[in-house]
Amino acid sequence: MSENVPPQQSQSQEPEQDHDHDHESLNSPLLSREHRSTNSTSQVAIVGVNLCSIESLDYEIAENDFFKQDWRTRGKIQIFQYIFMKWLLCFLIGGFVSLVGFCNNLAVENIAGVKFVVTSNMMLAGRYEMAFLVFFLSNLGLTLFAAIITAFIAPAAAGSGIPEVKAYLNGVDAPGIISLRTCIVKIMGSVSAVSSSLLVGKAGPMVHTGACIASLLGQGGSRKYGLTWKWLRFFKNDRDRRDLVTCGAAAGIAAAFRAPVGGVLFALEEMASCLPIVLNCGCGCACNVAVVAWTSGLLWRAFFTTAVVAIILRALIDVCLSGKCGLFGKGGLIMFDVYSANISYHIADVPPVLLLGAVGGILGSLYNFLLDKVLRVYSIINVKSITYKIFIACAISIFTSCLLFGLPWLASCQPCPLDTAEACPTIGRSGNYKKFQCPPGHYNDLASLIFNTNDDAIRNLFSRNTDSEFQHSTMLIFFVTCFILSIVSSGVVAPAGLFVPVIVTGASYGRFVGMILGSHTNLNHGFYAVLGAASFLGGSMRMTVSLCVIILELTNNLLLLPMIMMVLLVSKTVADAFNGNIYDLIMKAKGFPYLEAHTEPYMRQLTVADVVSGPLQLCHGIEKVGNIVHILKTTSHHGFPVIDEPPHSESPVLYGLILRAHLITLLKKRAFLRTPVRIGAEAFNHFSADEFAKKGLGNVDRIEDINLTDEEMEMFLDLHPFTNASPYTVVETMSLAKASTLFRVIGLRHLLVIPKTSNRTPVVGILTRHDFMAEHVLDLHPILVNSKWKRLRFQLPPFLQIF
Amino acid sequence: MSENVPPQQSQSQEPEQDHDHDHESLNSPLLSREHRSTNSTSQVAIVGVNLCSIESLDYEIAENDFFKQDWRTRGKIQIFQYIFMKWLLCFLIGGFVSLVGFCNNLAVENIAGVKFVVTSNMMLAGRYEMAFLVFFLSNLGLTLFAAIITAFIAPAAAGSGIPEVKAYLNGVDAPGIISLRTCIVKIMGSVSAVSSSLLVGKAGPMVHTGACIASLLGQGGSRKYGLTWKWLRFFKNDRDRRDLVTCGAAAGIAAAFRAPVGGVLFALEEMASCLPIVLNCGCGCACNVAVVAWTSGLLWRAFFTTAVVAIILRALIDVCLSGKCGLFGKGGLIMFDVYSANISYHIADVPPVLLLGAVGGILGSLYNFLLDKVLRVYSIINVKSITYKIFIACAISIFTSCLLFGLPWLASCQPCPLDTAEACPTIGRSGNYKKFQCPPGHYNDLASLIFNTNDDAIRNLFSRNTDSEFQHSTMLIFFVTCFILSIVSSGVVAPAGLFVPVIVTGASYGRFVGMILGSHTNLNHGFYAVLGAASFLGGSMRMTVSLCVIILELTNNLLLLPMIMMVLLVSKTVADAFNGNIYDLIMKAKGFPYLEAHTEPYMRQLTVADVVSGPLQLCHGIEKVGNIVHILKTTSHHGFPVIDEPPHSESPVLYGLILRAHLITLLKKRAFLRTPVRIGAEAFNHFSADEFAKKGLGNVDRIEDINLTDEEMEMFLDLHPFTNASPYTVVETMSLAKASTLFRVIGLRHLLVIPKTSNRTPVVGILTRHDFMAEHVLDLHPILVNSKWKRLRFQLPPFLQIF
Repeated sequence: MSENVPPQQSQSQEPEQDHDHDHESLNSPLLSREHRSTNSTSQVAIVGVNLCSIESLDYEIAENDFFKQDWRTRGKIQIFQYIFMKWLLCFLIGGFVSLVGFCNNLAVENIAGVKFVVTSNMMLAGRYEMAFLVFFLSNLGLTLFAAIITAFIAPAAAGSGIPEVKAYLNGVDAPGIISLRTCIVKIMGSVSAVSSSLLVGKAGPMVHTGACIASLLGQGGSRKYGLTWKWLRFFKNDRDRRDLVTCGAAAGIAAAFRAPVGGVLFALEEMASCLPIVLNCGCGCACNVAVVAWTSGLLWRAFFTTAVVAIILRALIDVCLSGKCGLFGKGGLIMFDVYSANISYHIADVPPVLLLGAVGGILGSLYNFLLDKVLRVYSIINVKSITYKIFIACAISIFTSCLLFGLPWLASCQPCPLDTAEACPTIGRSGNYKKFQCPPGHYNDLASLIFNTNDDAIRNLFSRNTDSEFQHSTMLIFFVTCFILSIVSSGVVAPAGLFVPVIVTGASYGRFVGMILGSHTNLNHGFYAVLGAASFLGGSMRMTVSLCVIILELTNNLLLLPMIMMVLLVSKTVADAFNGNIYDLIMKAKGFPYLEAHTEPYMRQLTVADVVSGPLQLCHGIEKVGNIVHILKTTSHHGFPVIDEPPHSESPVLYGLILRAHLITLLKKRAFLRTPVRIGAEAFNHFSADEFAKKGLGNVDRIEDINLTDEEMEMFLDLHPFTNASPYTVVETMSLAKASTLFRVIGLRHLLVIPKTSNRTPVVGILTRHDFMAEHVLDLHPILVNSKWKRLRFQLPPFLQIF
Repeated sequence: MSENVPPQQSQSQEPEQDHDHDHESLNSPLLSREHRSTNSTSQVAIVGVNLCSIESLDYEIAENDFFKQDWRTRGKIQIFQYIFMKWLLCFLIGGFVSLVGFCNNLAVENIAGVKFVVTSNMMLAGRYEMAFLVFFLSNLGLTLFAAIITAFIAPAAAGSGIPEVKAYLNGVDAPGIISLRTCIVKIMGSVSAVSSSLLVGKAGPMVHTGACIASLLGQGGSRKYGLTWKWLRFFKNDRDRRDLVTCGAAAGIAAAFRAPVGGVLFALEEMASCLPIVLNCGCGCACNVAVVAWTSGLLWRAFFTTAVVAIILRALIDVCLSGKCGLFGKGGLIMFDVYSANISYHIADVPPVLLLGAVGGILGSLYNFLLDKVLRVYSIINVKSITYKIFIACAISIFTSCLLFGLPWLASCQPCPLDTAEACPTIGRSGNYKKFQCPPGHYNDLASLIFNTNDDAIRNLFSRNTDSEFQHSTMLIFFVTCFILSIVSSGVVAPAGLFVPVIVTGASYGRFVGMILGSHTNLNHGFYAVLGAASFLGGSMRMTVSLCVIILELTNNLLLLPMIMMVLLVSKTVADAFNGNIYDLIMKAKGFPYLEAHTEPYMRQLTVADVVSGPLQLCHGIEKVGNIVHILKTTSHHGFPVIDEPPHSESPVLYGLILRAHLITLLKKRAFLRTPVRIGAEAFNHFSADEFAKKGLGNVDRIEDINLTDEEMEMFLDLHPFTNASPYTVVETMSLAKASTLFRVIGLRHLLVIPKTSNRTPVVGILTRHDFMAEHVLDLHPILVNSKWKRLRFQLPPFLQIF
């Protein structure tokens, strides 16, 4: 009977394998030189602005007997429920996200609109100091509100949110990334931050909001208030939740930019790093029954979600067209309509456009570099205290207000053009010609851009037939201001997206290039602004297909397509020579253990045995309760290999893997055995599938909350029915690169390492996400840091290495 | 010394495991009841119109010591070469495919155009019989030419080509799918088949052509003519070739529809079933060195390729705009421009559009069903003899000619509208109003559609402000004719795409619905035609995002987006209830062992041991040459597990997997050892990496061509340096569903099955693609055929089950 052996000793059989280590080093079981350290790298990360400990998500199906039995008993009705719920949830996600996106826009346009109308009217009356005071105080108040709710209620809502959602979809779980509290703060904070004239976007926050809404809908309301729905029980696992969050993220982009196809592609290209495109539909089985071809199920559902967003947004905008929405601007699904039937370009236009793309790429990578540095500085300050955070937010708001109000005074007043269709100077809120301080019949061109909402500034920059509207100096000042403001604003403790700042900065850069080229080009300046925005987006975000489609959907001009593709490719290529994608840089700065799509070159030189760290905790198929409690209390692991030993089997064999959450559920139920025997099918009567469902929102049961009597501690549990009998395994000599591919592509949380030779324990280690992190590997094998494989990896150009 | 044991006996140790089979059936090593049959299902398939034996592709990197050593010796220059070549090849693919696409269009427009002009002129002169004869004979001649070159030179070029390319990207290798001969026949055959007024498309053939061009460029010219380039040596593996073929397929769609973004998405959604979206860049290592963020490398390169296509096409069309291209129509990158600024739709338009989508979905699935049946009938006839094939082609051509020329006589002549901007009746080639037999001032509306090229018919159907042009009966006749002709034409022994026929049929259906609705709708009939085409495409092809983008790019109207999305979703959902995607049906009919993205429900109830079939052939780490020759001659396997036994190791251990191709290379080199010792690094001096490169175009060395002396047969080979020491493995108790996911997602060719208990041979089986096929599994376990899991899977509605 091996039940009395404490678990720490059970794997002490293995390190006695050193004797064949001198010869045949290629073949020897490498795990014999075992690392007795625990891997503590990348266990914490900055979520929003606070430091949190992080876990992995369980995307793999724990295919144990209990699960199989539960699945076998499901009839057609349950399968119908599952599929119906899947589509209903997508519909609801689309509905809620489009409503939130619409209300968000409505609120921003009205709050910011009233602010600008009031200040403009005061300036019309000559009360400039009063106007500044109103502008300054309303901005400060709004920023303060956003900062306070973010800092005190939901710190995870700070920032763009896209890095957090991206990490979540990669399998990283951190408390608060996705919760009701975060969701509400994100929506309110985003509205007030954008309205406060900070140069921050609302697309990133919308993606995060969409992800939160999707996850919350999947939770099925609150159990506390009795709002759960039985049909939602199939969604109580990370796998289905991940699919919903992907759809939510797609809906977020679709609602923010009114770009449904772009949203789907964004979710695919940027977010779903870890999902194979042909992800086989959540529970993997039920859906096969109803429909025959379900190859790209997730893609299809994401498409459905964004279609719902598009249709609802379209209907809501139709309502607003009749003027019932206050200051909400007109316009359909397309935000910046730059259609002109007469756009034509020729070979002569290609070289300047290529140059624009290349310089845009350099500027974009510089933007990424500076943003990364600024965020790192901010995060050092942020950990000190909440007062500092809020102080920074106020300082940035004051700085922004001064710049926005002060800079237009530098620009000289321009006489209104005679042949324009628009009113000049504009009296209302939006329009191309702001009066600001100018005499009647004149307009201030810098104020038209800078003393305006970001959306209106972009619209002005993209507008065609306005080539003579702006002066060179105006455009240069605006570009530099945007570049600086967008970098300093993004680290503020409030929801702050990056898309819109990048588009504004890029559009001003592009328009400036167009103005410099002047008569040497056939293209109008508005088109150059679009290309400039594309080059900046390509240089900073480094997406291709999705950005291309988003720009097309934003501007509604397919004739521009070849040019936009060219600019995106050039800028991405140039920028990739310097540094990474902005979201990857932020994730790295925040410390998320993100599994990269590519493996490091040196991983090919290592085997899994070289990185796996011990000691390993094992359970037996029939284990004493006391031992289980001991293991759970002394370790923080989330999965334990289960082995069968004599007399229950002839020789020690690996039975499978059991999850901590399932062990705790078993302990809570107290269905213990007096003797160590296998119970088999009887187990299914004691438990219901719901008890093993993964709870959302970080509601995990803790072992410390379970109090067992001494008598119970001496009893036994048969773990077999609850053990995943089909865990993925690798042999210890497997190359680390291949194991890493397996881990990432299948979306695992635990990967068991089995020995090469047969005369050892049946499992010699367990790999988790943290073991594949570059820091951990380099920490164990410092020689690789300066090896050829490592050095070649970071090819920073010399002029950036001085930092 | 175990070298003298014949390989067949070496695994005879394993089946003595039955004694613990009575108790613990859940735990017992299931492989003990081993299947002694060999798996012969799905080893042959119909490629084009001929039956061929098929193999799998090696997507996994054979990570042996030799490969690692070769890789270690690569310097920065080689890595630069690799990356440079990768992009250069994409550029060349884009260039060649766009040229071919352009010439293809040019040739079709001119050949078909001359034909229609000549016949029209004869009819204008009243010589109707002569006109029919010219029309009939030219069609017959063109069809005959296409059929003869296809049947005699390259049978693999018949049909759409998309199923073949899809199977290739899934990992299925069949001779001739991708070769120079196929490529040339596909281009020429497609031009003549489309010009011959058969209702066949050119998009599918373009995809196949693109794939062929990509693969041929990757081959690096012909070794026979000394046209190889040293820099191409890195592409001599299936992995890099697959990436190129994906880019080629994307370029094909981009060139056929002038839809660059749609092309990328098509390649992603439809083709890359087996590729995880974050496919890590070919050789997996070299590219990491130069660029830091390379997450979606393949996506990016496909995008680059289609951007090249778009830019070159745009330039070529610019040249044609000045009228130098004969009868080639005008128009830019957008084929069917339906832009109208005043399109507006309201809630009231939604129900009819939903209905249109639903009925379109039913018709689309009916189309798939009938096409599948017709193709099966054709393939029975086709295997008989070439004469039959060509006879069928001629019969269909005659049938088509008669219908096209005969049907317009049924339609009554319409008086020309007075307010049209176009000439009426049209005298030239294209235009909305064909004169046909009508008196001056009148036009034949059916002839305008049917006696025209497919592109012009689509343009006429999509045209707006022509709501009164067509009569109800005309549209109905045209719809039925298209439906029938497109089904019977697609099985013809000539390149014959499906996209254009489906679009024509769908557009006529949509326009018919629009005409029926008449004044009950605000939308014009051209828009209904677009929606009808969308519903038919959705119902037949079952793609969503890519079709949506392709339709947008074809019609240049983003305002239609929400409607198109809705129609696609509805039609796909409805059609999925009946049967599968058209390409999947064709692949199934042709017998390709396509790995589905979803696993069958019953696979979750089986373990890998339940399907793996024996006998297993093993090699030893140091093996006698005679044994290797024996194994290679007596089996047709392509991978052999390599085990080390005492005295080379303490106990039998699995060393890895060696490929047949590598064994043959070793035998050809004759670098044998006199004594069984390990040679280690010395091996690297004898061989160069090029010798192990995978040859293209099915040029494999055969074991029968190698003649060894008796003395050599008694010598030894050290296989260790050439064995992939990191093969993917699964334990025999792994669930089949999970193993199948692993196999598909990683893109494996061989998956080793290792025993659960340690006292058996270190490897008990090997899984290949064929072992996961439903037919094989059901053949082994007939009880599953009628089980709940199986029955639920095929939910054909009762009215279709009568067939």
